[in-house]
This record gives sequence, structure tokens and C-alpha cells, in this order.
Amino acid sequence: MPDDQPLPSPLLDRLHALLGPRGLLTDPADLEPHLSDWRNLYRGSTPCVVRPGTVAELAEAVRLCAAAGTPLVPQGGNTSMVGGATPDEGGRQVVVSLARLNRVRDIDPLDMTMTAEAGVVLKAAQDAAAAAGCLFPLSLGAEGTATVGGVLSTNAGGNTTVRYGNARELMLGLEVVLPDGQVWNGLRRLRKDNTGYALRHLFVGAEGTLGFITAAVLRLFPRPRETEVALCAVRDEDAALGLFRRFRDRDEGAVRAFEYMSGEGVGFYARHIEGGTVPLPGHDHYVLVDLASSRPEAGLRALIEAVLEEALEAGEVLDATIGESEAQRHAIWRIREEHPEAQKREGASVKNDVSVPVSKVPELIRRASEACRHLIPGVRPVPFGHLGDGNIHMNLEQPVGMDPAAFLARSHDIMETVNEVVRDLGGSFSAEHGIGRLKTDMMEGWRGGAELELMRRIKAAVDPQGLMNPGKVLP
Amino acid sequence: MPDDQPLPSPLLDRLHALLGPRGLLTDPADLEPHLSDWRNLYRGSTPCVVRPGTVAELAEAVRLCAAAGTPLVPQGGNTSMVGGATPDEGGRQVVVSLARLNRVRDIDPLDMTMTAEAGVVLKAAQDAAAAAGCLFPLSLGAEGTATVGGVLSTNAGGNTTVRYGNARELMLGLEVVLPDGQVWNGLRRLRKDNTGYALRHLFVGAEGTLGFITAAVLRLFPRPRETEVALCAVRDEDAALGLFRRFRDRDEGAVRAFEYMSGEGVGFYARHIEGGTVPLPGHDHYVLVDLASSRPEAGLRALIEAVLEEALEAGEVLDATIGESEAQRHAIWRIREEHPEAQKREGASVKNDVSVPVSKVPELIRRASEACRHLIPGVRPVPFGHLGDGNIHMNLEQPVGMDPAAFLARSHDIMETVNEVVRDLGGSFSAEHGIGRLKTDMMEGWRGGAELELMRRIKAAVDPQGLMNPGKVLP
Repeated sequence: MPDDQPLPSPLLDRLHALLGPRGLLTDPADLEPHLSDWRNLYRGSTPCVVRPGTVAELAEAVRLCAAAGTPLVPQGGNTSMVGGATPDEGGRQVVVSLARLNRVRDIDPLDMTMTAEAGVVLKAAQDAAAAAGCLFPLSLGAEGTATVGGVLSTNAGGNTTVRYGNARELMLGLEVVLPDGQVWNGLRRLRKDNTGYALRHLFVGAEGTLGFITAAVLRLFPRPRETEVALCAVRDEDAALGLFRRFRDRDEGAVRAFEYMSGEGVGFYARHIEGGTVPLPGHDHYVLVDLASSRPEAGLRALIEAVLEEALEAGEVLDATIGESEAQRHAIWRIREEHPEAQKREGASVKNDVSVPVSKVPELIRRASEACRHLIPGVRPVPFGHLGDGNIHMNLEQPVGMDPAAFLARSHDIMETVNEVVRDLGGSFSAEHGIGRLKTDMMEGWRGGAELELMRRIKAAVDPQGLMNPGKVLP
Repeated sequence: MPDDQPLPSPLLDRLHALLGPRGLLTDPADLEPHLSDWRNLYRGSTPCVVRPGTVAELAEAVRLCAAAGTPLVPQGGNTSMVGGATPDEGGRQVVVSLARLNRVRDIDPLDMTMTAEAGVVLKAAQDAAAAAGCLFPLSLGAEGTATVGGVLSTNAGGNTTVRYGNARELMLGLEVVLPDGQVWNGLRRLRKDNTGYALRHLFVGAEGTLGFITAAVLRLFPRPRETEVALCAVRDEDAALGLFRRFRDRDEGAVRAFEYMSGEGVGFYARHIEGGTVPLPGHDHYVLVDLASSRPEAGLRALIEAVLEEALEAGEVLDATIGESEAQRHAIWRIREEHPEAQKREGASVKNDVSVPVSKVPELIRRASEACRHLIPGVRPVPFGHLGDGNIHMNLEQPVGMDPAAFLARSHDIMETVNEVVRDLGGSFSAEHGIGRLKTDMMEGWRGGAELELMRRIKAAVDPQGLMNPGKVLP
């Protein structure tokens, strides 16, 4: 196909006839927001953006594109951290936005399930569950923009994985438009269903390379009746882990989030974020504890006070403050939530979304920090994240005064240095952000051999033309 | 291949050289226990039983068989309810027993994980976890015989799914010998790992049709510090569901099991099981409530008393007894556990392992019972099972005095009658027992179209020669 004719015009005509002006964008200004990723790592191009209003429209559009051999890039809220929803630079990949499939089809508080379409924004899904007296627990920084389809396609994790699991574990059934345009209705709301291969688990986490998730049956939970949030200064990384064990041992189900933050990262927050005051300044290691329970009279206040007192006496916790109001709890969470923004304002940083067994988190933080300081003298490790599930954002901030571009030129070296430690500890090079386009070149080294060969065979079996989100996940 | 030469003797020689006498059984007496299933529905034949002592031996044996085009039937504890581990009658399918791969390789109470080989008996896995101060919660009737590899290959459920999930949800990583003899080491003990397709979820529930699960990383949980078990006579099916809601609303995480039993089924227990006394005889509907918590001072006794009192006042519960000792709790559980045996002794019965959304359980029980009574006058519905997760064993006992064989001749009609109701309620025709050989002919009607086509494509991609457990799962 010649470069000056990125899409066969008969296909464009057919898509237009099928979808109408609301469903097919071709004006460059309309395309613009769909061409680059959240982190501005990539900028691609597309002949058009398909925005189907119904699953049937999507299925027909996929059939038309499949017949024309046109590659498709599914896009939800476009908040990928790894360029997973951005078209490449070739100009042939058609972006398919699921934004208009945004109905909550059903909520059942007795079954504790919600059936939501792919384009439902995560926050809207949370709100719909709350309105029905239930909790949809998936929670992450981009929840005001990310969509149900996106968080399932990437198996998003976030803050509450320690208690409720990843997106995968919150999903009972799926509806999928397959690469040939067939619709698979697997919207079963069953806790037990052993009838052949678990196809739904194949599409979750496939990052749109096997088909379009168009709707899902999601699990709901009882709403918390009590919550407690504390910020704790802890002695070191081991003390952070020790504190997690103390809470887990006392009330496993109450630990909704358990987040680590470095003193340096908390300092960036104080320096760069409006109103960024820190209740307990000047420590090297912090932990955010979030407890929640749906039990009436769960006694979380007594629990958190007792555990913190024990840990203070043991010298693991150096100081702690418990949120006394919703506003104070929010203020504590804000320290953690604004970490990415504070790091951005401090200068250039390199992100590493890695995981290790929970027991290895202290060693990961210490060894990866040390190795990076050895690699680039003056580099500032600012690890933070989900200690309770083993997923640490092992980020590195540029040395003070270093040229940001010169620092970013070392990104690959830094990631390799961190990953060497991660590998040695039995961890993963991508914990919750996925592979997208950013990490495809790591797949061979980490998942090569039988595993990658199996993935390729499955890709070929489900998407024989290779039209679904090409260039993502598989190298 | 001629019938009188079921296995090429060069292959048998090579297997013998590889595995030695302990690893290769050919004596008819040794083969015998491997030829028929738990329920005695099928009886097959095999030229030999391969019993590898190491994963490497298994891999090499699979390579040899793949080169010879010899089909393989994986077998764990051989407790399948659907003939999933039995060779066919052709005499060519080699049974591969994982029994000798029975090491618990590792237990980590800090990570809350256990790495166990396929042949570890479920009870032994529970005991190993307990010895390390943890809980491995999967629990089912056959736990003294069923193996880790078997429960994962079939995604077993059992009594505690309402609290801990199916086998699938208790698994973090797998080691698999693929149909070509390659070993995939996916034994990662990570809560978050988004690096390509979730292959582990493809092997779980595939019933050995895609490869051999040889080891798994399993999730552990804190051990309960308090437990309470009660037997309740309830007004009707709706009251049973209402009681479940009351407990879930008060302490969601404490409901470890919530089991329904019909009055008729409980009567069979009293009649046929040695020492089968029932504390509250003469009611039409029963519920077993099992609460557990790892919290110190969880207050489960106060909780169970308060909820039962509420439900008594509301007229939902008619009578109840709380186990006052481990012996009494065990005696209550025995009523439920002996249901299959009591039904067997009463006469011929037809089993239906079905599931519906939890909210539909009362309707399922009523409508399926009614429809079966209409089909066969005098038939005795004896539904029991996991109300809390929507999985009811909707079994039918023969009419008094009817010829058992004549009744069993109606098995297909009965299953169809039950399944018609199940389908109408959005349920599944196989909740926890899987497909095996027994239900392959239902796959087309229930999972036909895009879903079954995808399963077939995946089967062909992973096992192109079609040598893994042929005749199971896929029709």
C-alpha cells in the first residue's frame, strides 16, 4: 500500500456508512488526543478513529477492517504507562476507541456483581457500585480517566491488590469482539464454571492483542463501614515489612492498602506539591497503612493503635499519625498519590514498575538503590508503592544539577541495573503496567523459550492475520 | 497400528530404559487401579502406566511418546467425577501417573506461598501448610486422595470457594511439561506480574488436554484462630439464602462455607450412615454455616448467636444448633460430607453439578425439583451443596421401588431437564467437576460457536498432534 494512501478509501467509505460522523473521526484535530500516550513517550498516526456506539457496530467495523487487512489499536482511557494504546508511526493502524460503549448494564447487590461496558470510566464504575450499596474495589491513580476495558485488558492492579486482587481477580465474565468480528458472549456471573478453557483469562492482560473486551461481569464487595489511615515513619525497609506482618497477623482482611514511600520521595512532595505538608517530616522511610472493614463495630481504631504501639515499642515505628477525619485521611493518601507528579517536578526520572516476593521487598529496595548509585553517582532512588503485594515503583530521580536529557539517555542502563536485582530475587520486570510497546524488547530475555513460543502460537491461533494491536506485548 | 500391538515395542523399550521398573508399569495387576474412574462410569485400557520420578524424566518420556505419536492420559489421584483421567477403550492411550512427583519443594510463611509438586495429595498439602503455621484452604470430599496437579488441572472448588475461591484463585505460578516435552518454568511467587498472556490460567481447568502441570506455587492464608459451625433448619430455600446474606453482611470474610441440604438428603444420612444422628430431625431444609477467622478475639460465637437469633425471630430459621466442641463441629460437617455415600446406599441417583448466580439458587432448587418430579413421578430431589457460591449438586434419587437400571436409563433426560432450568437462570452445566469424558457432548450446545471454536484453535496451537488426553473436554 503506498504511503500517501494509508487507508483504502472504500474501507473508509464503508466505515463511514456504518458508523456515521459520531462514530468515525477523520479530522486531524479530532485525531490528536488519540495519537500519543499518557507519558508522552510515543507519538503515532492514524487515518481515522473508530468510535462504535454499540457492540454490533464494533463487530461490523472489525469485520470490515479484517477483510481489508487493516490493523487495529484498541484504546480505552489512553492512560497506558507503556504506550500500549498508541498507534505506531506508519499511519495505517486504525485507533478504535471504546469510549461510547459506556453503559453499566446491570448491578445486582445480591449476587454482588456489576456488568459494565468497556468504556465505563473506572471512577464511574466505583460510583455505580456505591450507589447500589456495594464496593468495586479497584483503585488507581488514573481512575478518573482509565476505563473498565482498559483496566481489564492490562490487568491493572493499583492500591488495593493486597486485599482484593488485580483486575483479573475482580472479573467473572467477559464479552469480546474477536479479531474476525465474531462476538463471544461470556458474560456469566458465576463463581464456579468449569466448562473448558478459561478464555476470559486469556483476554485479561493481553493488552488488546487478541481482541476487544467490550463488557465484563465484575465482582462487588460489601462497602466498608469503618476505615482507618495512618502515616508511619519506620526505622528501615525491614521495619516496613515487619509492620505489614503485624497488621496481617491481627486482621488479614482489614489491610486494604499498605504502601511504602522513601524519605526522599516524601521530601519531593513537600517541596513541589501545593499544600504539600507532611505530618512527620524528616524521616528516611514511610509507610501508609489503610485499613477497612465492612463489619459493624470492627474495632479498627483500637487495632491500629494497638499495632502501632507494639511496633513503636519494638523500635520498628519511629512516629505515626492516624487520620482523625476524612480530610486528614485524604491528606495522608495525597502524599502517596502525588508521588509521580512530585518526581516529575523535581526533574527527570526513570520509572521501574517491578515486583518481587513480598519477603524480598526490603532487599529489592536496598540492592537496587545501591546498584543505581554505583551506576550513576548522585542518582536519587525514590522507591514507593505497594509493599503489601510486592510491587514497588523502583524509580530513580536524576542527580541534582545533571542535565535531564543526559540522565534520560541512561534510562536503559538504569532499567537493566534494577532488573538484574529483580531477576536475582525471583521478581518480574513489569508488575502492573504491562508490556505495551515500551517493554517488548525485554520479553525475549525474561519470557523467552517455551513461554514466548506458546504466547506466539496463541496469538497466531486467535488473531491469524496479526491485526490486533500489532507491535505490542510480543516482540 | 494393528490392534494386537497397542504400543510400538521400541517405544516401550525406550520408556523402560528411561524410567526403570518403578517408573514403568506393564503388569496387568499394576495397571488395574488406573483403568477405571472413581464413579465407575468408564473402564479403559492402556499398554502401560508411566510413573516418572522427576520432571526431567517426565519431559523425556513425553518427548519419546510425542515422537511415536502416542496419546497420553495424565492421572493424579484418579478421583474425577467425569471420567477425566481414564484412558479410552482403544488400548493405545498411555496413562501417566504424577504420583511420584510428590515433594513440597518450599513453604514460605512470610510470602504466604507453598511450592508443591503435582503428586502431592491435597490433604498432605494442607498438613504441610499447617505445619508452617499457615492455611491452604482448598477442601473437598476427595482431599485424602486428590492431588495438587489434579485439583489445578480441574480447577477444583469444594466447600471453601465462597471465602477463598477455586483452585485457580489459589495458584500464583505453574511448572508445566508441554505436549512436545518442553518444560515451562512459570513458578513465580508474585502477586503482580503483567508480562504477556496468562498462560497459567490456560492450563488450570484444561483437564490435562494442553500439558502436564508438574508443580505449582500456591497461596497460603493465616490459620483461623476461631471457628464456629452451626446446623440450622430453615423455613425454605429463600430463607437459606436470606441467612447467607445476614452473615455476609455482618462479617463477609468469616463465612468459610455455607452449605444447603434438603430434608430428604439429611434423612438418607440418618438412615444409612453409621452413627448418623441428626441434631434437628424432621425439617425440609437445612443449612450448614461454617465461620472462621484468623483475628484474635474475632467474636464469632457472639456473631453466630446474634445472627441466628435475628433469623429465628424473622421466621427464617426454625431451629439451630451450634457445635460446642471440635467433635460436635465434625459431627455436623459429617452430615454434609456423607451426602454422596448416603445417596448411593439409598439407591440409584443421577448427579448434576450445576451453578447459577447466587441469587437464583432458591429458584434453581424449586424449579429443577418440580421439573424432575414432572418427568419421573416419585423421583426424589436431593439437592445439596455450596449455596454461598451458587454451586448446587442438584441430584435426583430414584423413586422408591423403581428398578435402579430403569431409573439410570433416564439419566440423560434428567440431566437435560435440570440443565434447561440452569440455562434459563444463566447458569452452568458443570460448576466444579469439569467436563472430562462425561460432558463433552454438552459442550456444543452450551459453549458452541465462537467460544468452542477458540478453544479448538488453542488446543491445536498448544498440542498440534492432539496427543494430550484425547476425547476429554472438547467434543
